Amino acid sequence: MADNNRAVVFENARDMRVESLAFPKLEMPNGKSAPHGVILRIVATNICGSDLHIYRGSFPVPQGMVMGHEMTGEVIEVGTDVERVKVGDLVSVPFNVACGRCRNCKARHTEICENENVNPAVACGAYGFNLGDWTGGQAEYLFVPYADFQLLRFPDRDQAMEKIRDLALLSDILPTAFHGLMEAGAKPGSTVYIAGAGPVGRCGAAAARLLGASCIIVGDYYQDRLDLMKNNGCETIDLSQDVPLTDQIEAILGEPMVDCAVDYVGLEAHGIGREAEDMNPAYALNQVIDATRPGGATGVIGVYGPDPLAKSKAEQEGTFPIDFGKAWIKSPRISAGQAPIMHYNRELMMAILWDRMPYLSDMLNTKIISLDETPDAYATFDTGVSDKFIIDPHSLVPA
Amino acid sequence: MADNNRAVVFENARDMRVESLAFPKLEMPNGKSAPHGVILRIVATNICGSDLHIYRGSFPVPQGMVMGHEMTGEVIEVGTDVERVKVGDLVSVPFNVACGRCRNCKARHTEICENENVNPAVACGAYGFNLGDWTGGQAEYLFVPYADFQLLRFPDRDQAMEKIRDLALLSDILPTAFHGLMEAGAKPGSTVYIAGAGPVGRCGAAAARLLGASCIIVGDYYQDRLDLMKNNGCETIDLSQDVPLTDQIEAILGEPMVDCAVDYVGLEAHGIGREAEDMNPAYALNQVIDATRPGGATGVIGVYGPDPLAKSKAEQEGTFPIDFGKAWIKSPRISAGQAPIMHYNRELMMAILWDRMPYLSDMLNTKIISLDETPDAYATFDTGVSDKFIIDPHSLVPA
Amino acid sequence: MADNNRAVVFENARDMRVESLAFPKLEMPNGKSAPHGVILRIVATNICGSDLHIYRGSFPVPQGMVMGHEMTGEVIEVGTDVERVKVGDLVSVPFNVACGRCRNCKARHTEICENENVNPAVACGAYGFNLGDWTGGQAEYLFVPYADFQLLRFPDRDQAMEKIRDLALLSDILPTAFHGLMEAGAKPGSTVYIAGAGPVGRCGAAAARLLGASCIIVGDYYQDRLDLMKNNGCETIDLSQDVPLTDQIEAILGEPMVDCAVDYVGLEAHGIGREAEDMNPAYALNQVIDATRPGGATGVIGVYGPDPLAKSKAEQEGTFPIDFGKAWIKSPRISAGQAPIMHYNRELMMAILWDRMPYLSDMLNTKIISLDETPDAYATFDTGVSDKFIIDPHSLVPA
Amino acid sequence: MADNNRAVVFENARDMRVESLAFPKLEMPNGKSAPHGVILRIVATNICGSDLHIYRGSFPVPQGMVMGHEMTGEVIEVGTDVERVKVGDLVSVPFNVACGRCRNCKARHTEICENENVNPAVACGAYGFNLGDWTGGQAEYLFVPYADFQLLRFPDRDQAMEKIRDLALLSDILPTAFHGLMEAGAKPGSTVYIAGAGPVGRCGAAAARLLGASCIIVGDYYQDRLDLMKNNGCETIDLSQDVPLTDQIEAILGEPMVDCAVDYVGLEAHGIGREAEDMNPAYALNQVIDATRPGGATGVIGVYGPDPLAKSKAEQEGTFPIDFGKAWIKSPRISAGQAPIMHYNRELMMAILWDRMPYLSDMLNTKIISLDETPDAYATFDTGVSDKFIIDPHSLVPA
Repeated sequence: MADNNRAVVFENARDMRVESLAFPKLEMPNGKSAPHGVILRIVATNICGSDLHIYRGSFPVPQGMVMGHEMTGEVIEVGTDVERVKVGDLVSVPFNVACGRCRNCKARHTEICENENVNPAVACGAYGFNLGDWTGGQAEYLFVPYADFQLLRFPDRDQAMEKIRDLALLSDILPTAFHGLMEAGAKPGSTVYIAGAGPVGRCGAAAARLLGASCIIVGDYYQDRLDLMKNNGCETIDLSQDVPLTDQIEAILGEPMVDCAVDYVGLEAHGIGREAEDMNPAYALNQVIDATRPGGATGVIGVYGPDPLAKSKAEQEGTFPIDFGKAWIKSPRISAGQAPIMHYNRELMMAILWDRMPYLSDMLNTKIISLDETPDAYATFDTGVSDKFIIDPHSLVPA
Repeated sequence: MADNNRAVVFENARDMRVESLAFPKLEMPNGKSAPHGVILRIVATNICGSDLHIYRGSFPVPQGMVMGHEMTGEVIEVGTDVERVKVGDLVSVPFNVACGRCRNCKARHTEICENENVNPAVACGAYGFNLGDWTGGQAEYLFVPYADFQLLRFPDRDQAMEKIRDLALLSDILPTAFHGLMEAGAKPGSTVYIAGAGPVGRCGAAAARLLGASCIIVGDYYQDRLDLMKNNGCETIDLSQDVPLTDQIEAILGEPMVDCAVDYVGLEAHGIGREAEDMNPAYALNQVIDATRPGGATGVIGVYGPDPLAKSKAEQEGTFPIDFGKAWIKSPRISAGQAPIMHYNRELMMAILWDRMPYLSDMLNTKIISLDETPDAYATFDTGVSDKFIIDPHSLVPA
Repeated sequence: MADNNRAVVFENARDMRVESLAFPKLEMPNGKSAPHGVILRIVATNICGSDLHIYRGSFPVPQGMVMGHEMTGEVIEVGTDVERVKVGDLVSVPFNVACGRCRNCKARHTEICENENVNPAVACGAYGFNLGDWTGGQAEYLFVPYADFQLLRFPDRDQAMEKIRDLALLSDILPTAFHGLMEAGAKPGSTVYIAGAGPVGRCGAAAARLLGASCIIVGDYYQDRLDLMKNNGCETIDLSQDVPLTDQIEAILGEPMVDCAVDYVGLEAHGIGREAEDMNPAYALNQVIDATRPGGATGVIGVYGPDPLAKSKAEQEGTFPIDFGKAWIKSPRISAGQAPIMHYNRELMMAILWDRMPYLSDMLNTKIISLDETPDAYATFDTGVSDKFIIDPHSLVPA
Repeated sequence: MADNNRAVVFENARDMRVESLAFPKLEMPNGKSAPHGVILRIVATNICGSDLHIYRGSFPVPQGMVMGHEMTGEVIEVGTDVERVKVGDLVSVPFNVACGRCRNCKARHTEICENENVNPAVACGAYGFNLGDWTGGQAEYLFVPYADFQLLRFPDRDQAMEKIRDLALLSDILPTAFHGLMEAGAKPGSTVYIAGAGPVGRCGAAAARLLGASCIIVGDYYQDRLDLMKNNGCETIDLSQDVPLTDQIEAILGEPMVDCAVDYVGLEAHGIGREAEDMNPAYALNQVIDATRPGGATGVIGVYGPDPLAKSKAEQEGTFPIDFGKAWIKSPRISAGQAPIMHYNRELMMAILWDRMPYLSDMLNTKIISLDETPDAYATFDTGVSDKFIIDPHSLVPA
């Protein structure tokens, strides 16, 4: 076919463009045929906070790469070894590319698939990143491999289209946020600290409500984000105030630390109070470690890696100053990394379909945009607004 | 002191009385002194469905035994080896008597404490049952041993008195109900079947909402109980309808079985449809096993034991006809027994205190009564009304 | 190709034959093509205790069905969607046929695969049973579907051939036995009771040693089996002695019950002492429930189902008299069903390859036989001998 | 009584002395009476690697403090609230002082007991450290509080005295080592890297064998320690060789990383190869993180804290340069802190009593010494010898 797949591509830092590209084929990035794959017509594809790392240039990707890893779509073509997904199915695509055939996938660690057809360089594949050369999904159409293993099918298409703003979050940020809570040991009655009220942090707060957490405290610098949380059953901490985090927690909870603390920020982090303007790749991490009580646990969902923007050579290579010696007496448990979306997305879909998260859209503040509006939305999103942008490339989402 | 402790005692089957008894001492049932114990002024003490087994005569207890195992109270005296509970503290008493010193208690299995000072006959102690001769708590005052280990202290007395109708459920039925869900593997997004809409089953439905279950289906025979559930976010099944349980589940869920099924009924169980009038000690158990999908799990919270009311000798001795051969292909996991209240009560208290179960009182339909109204309340409760009776012996509960 | 695949087929109860059949194709039992499949040259294929159920006629299968579900082989042909298994690889085949694409497989419950191409009748597929019409592997060649997902590849072919008698147990009985222990909560230091010293029970004893169980007690009726156990670090109980099981355990352990009890017998079970000649489908199950301490757990690996040989109609339909009421006070946890082999086989392979089970062959008493010797071996095995027969169809196993 | 309790006291860095002190009383460090306590006659009391931190002056303690936290003894006096421990019982004392009454103890986190009678300064108590002012047990007699909760009773005194060299390890290093493996997710078949072949690392190797780990690799600098490991079923890595750790692992295992890596070193750590003489508080930690495969886990049992010996102010305060950004793509799970001994000691005792660790004494190389030999033994131990010293203050240990 001709170049009839319009898509958002990375041209340069702070320069996203919409271009017409070739229609996708059932073919792996390394050129092998993919009888296990399908082609989707994209119904909803979101801009993620981690896309901003690319936008800002702090996570380098090739020029011309199609952006996007949060896709929901309709199956329009299936390979010869696809038996459980049908043309016409409406499905959610986990952002991790995972084969279902390697040791890690079999152990449900789909975030570290070690199939070299997925990524020959490192045990991790993802759409729209520099992790296996996978074409992103901020586009009209997308190739998805290992479809029987990967895709989450919505049981009823009409019901799903009605809830598509919520269901669109299943490809990444809702399961990712939930994973952070699970890694932090959250359960009914837990007290929770959520670092960062961007979209994934807000999903974390929503997920904490779903799972019955008791006191949910969200820390951020932006007042409108904190207001969204306050209005939806959470306590809030303004990190620009010059008060130690544990003191602020104690003022709310009566204790200086929580059971479960989750870092939804990552290495582009700021300090507290008079250090609020400073950046240090360990700031958010040390905050959540500090906020975790002895016997509690810490989840790290924010993205880390070698930090090309850091000042020191050590930090550029991924070595960060962590308050580990301070924390040791508390029996710290720190769990980090990308979320294995498939571990959670089916159950979270069920919770949405049975109306157990009526607060989700409110807390996320979702905005539907067109492909052509996407480059501007990146710029807007980068200012720290409290919106979550969902791209609707075919104008299919009901108003 | 004189006989100045008024209490509800078992005189005979269907004959409960209020009598004045001796004031409790810091002394074990076997007469040993108990420096680890405290005396409580009872603030709230509930009638439990398992009290009805005693009321009906199907669970034999000695004449004159003080009833009650769901107590909340104020500490008015402490032993010489009590260091963490203070006079004036408002506390919840787990119904299981547990020493905190035996192998099982150390492993958090407080429901099967094997300390022979707790119960020399069997590894299990409870107030107001024939399990270690523990005086029950439907009374003005109560002795509680191992107070530092056992008691759950409410952090703020005034806040607690405001929510006392909900907090009073922490001594037994809310944690018990939650335990059933945990044993059945319930988590956010799970589909759940709840057998029995008595108070503990209704707590099960409430707990399922708390933990984020998706589709919560409650089965019972009484329409007013089912209505309570329907009005609080649950689906319902009328078991007197002559339709197989899995068909009724499929009509609601689109699948004939759920992830998690919990038996909140026990051995005084009835059949489905044309067997609704029949009793068989394995009816409810087989229903929940039938309702559990392959790979799911089944929790059994309803009380079982040798069944003196059963027709066959085998059933009188505790051998029941269970559909195990039928179920084996489904990889069944069946977990039964009393709940270790202490495993859950602190977290559930936190959920209540932070307003995460606003539906709890509605779903339970709690009624506050006096000690003198208690004998009549037993008779009323036994008719299957949808009330949960909370006795307020000192008229302390706010209206 | 011509009928050049010699195989053991079920002709009738107690009548197994070796016949020449068509060479396998990459094709599902329902005739669909299977690009995900491979053809194996069988290197080792064992007779299992569950094959005896078929042999005796208590588990009905079609006349002419090829027997066998415990296969190890060499890949000689791969489908077009096989990417991780290569021609020449030496592999272990899990006995459960599992797609890796359905909800249960994704949750690691490969024993209850719900793909209807695997088995349209029930959520469970297996080779050489009446569970999805899968051709068995007591043959020269075998078709295996979903090869990338299913097959366990041995890292080094020569090393594997040296240990093939042990590695041949990875397709079923070693992981199955280990699963029973896991379901019973076994861990280092646990006390364990193993019901049945057939091959899978003996694997259970070996697996209990591997995982560091402390006191391992094996119960059986055959003295030579018990001797095998005694000589390999286990305690033994002769169930034909007329002494209650808990008394016999107490004489060994100092306590009447163990932490973990596993039923490796199933429904063709006998009683204890004067009931040793009697059969009852609940005998072994009730024994392991009886032997489990409060707070312990019970695994049920022996095969259950509707019992066509039972006397009562209830038992024929799979309803058995279980001592559930007696056990309830002990907080029983009972977990049953087929083992998801893939959950364990890789780790157990590693334990074998690093020589952590030097006692395994001794405990199993493996005997290598040819295809032609197989019908006789069935008859011998049925007498209760302490051998484990491994068929070597191509005379490849080193002496 | 007079000063008739001879004990090893810390006089100064590298200066331990034996002195006569007052006989212990049933009294807490804060002077409160302790009806829950007992007095022990010490039978075995070991020198631990963490005692060397004190010996060297890197962990500051008050002059005159009695050393020792690894005690086994005979009960000679019990308080009025002790009901399960009797005079004459032979018991193991967990090194963590824990009340059994606070939230953390009830959750089995006895290593972070938050009872302020145990330690008013921080949620952690231990004998013979500066953690709650608890008198150590390198002495003839010792006071132990919360005896019913804390003490592990050996079932048979004579049997225990025969195995006392092994059982003496239950008070700390064997459960501590095992905890590290549990935190690293070790199970049968796991591949394990053990950093440090001091006594606790050697216990880690022994515990890895017990639990059925497959390939157990131990890294250290001392050849005699490595030889001990090599002769007892482990693989070894000489860290003074200038080869990257993952290359050395790959040479042994065929893969560059293991499933489970445990740091048994702590902050007095050295580098690899040409950095073998350098010290850096994050060296060992970064090595185990580096050695852990994606999806694996890392346990940190070595002691961390603010490092007074470090060069930089950050490190003195407990902030260390950790390769977190490098590791994030691997989904790291890092779990650190002191071990809750009670979580494991009973099961490990059972394993010893049933002879499941015949290699333990060999691997540990235990040496029995008198109290008077202890000061010299500290100096010898500090040179890195492969001995484990057990002090026998009353000459009770059989030769």
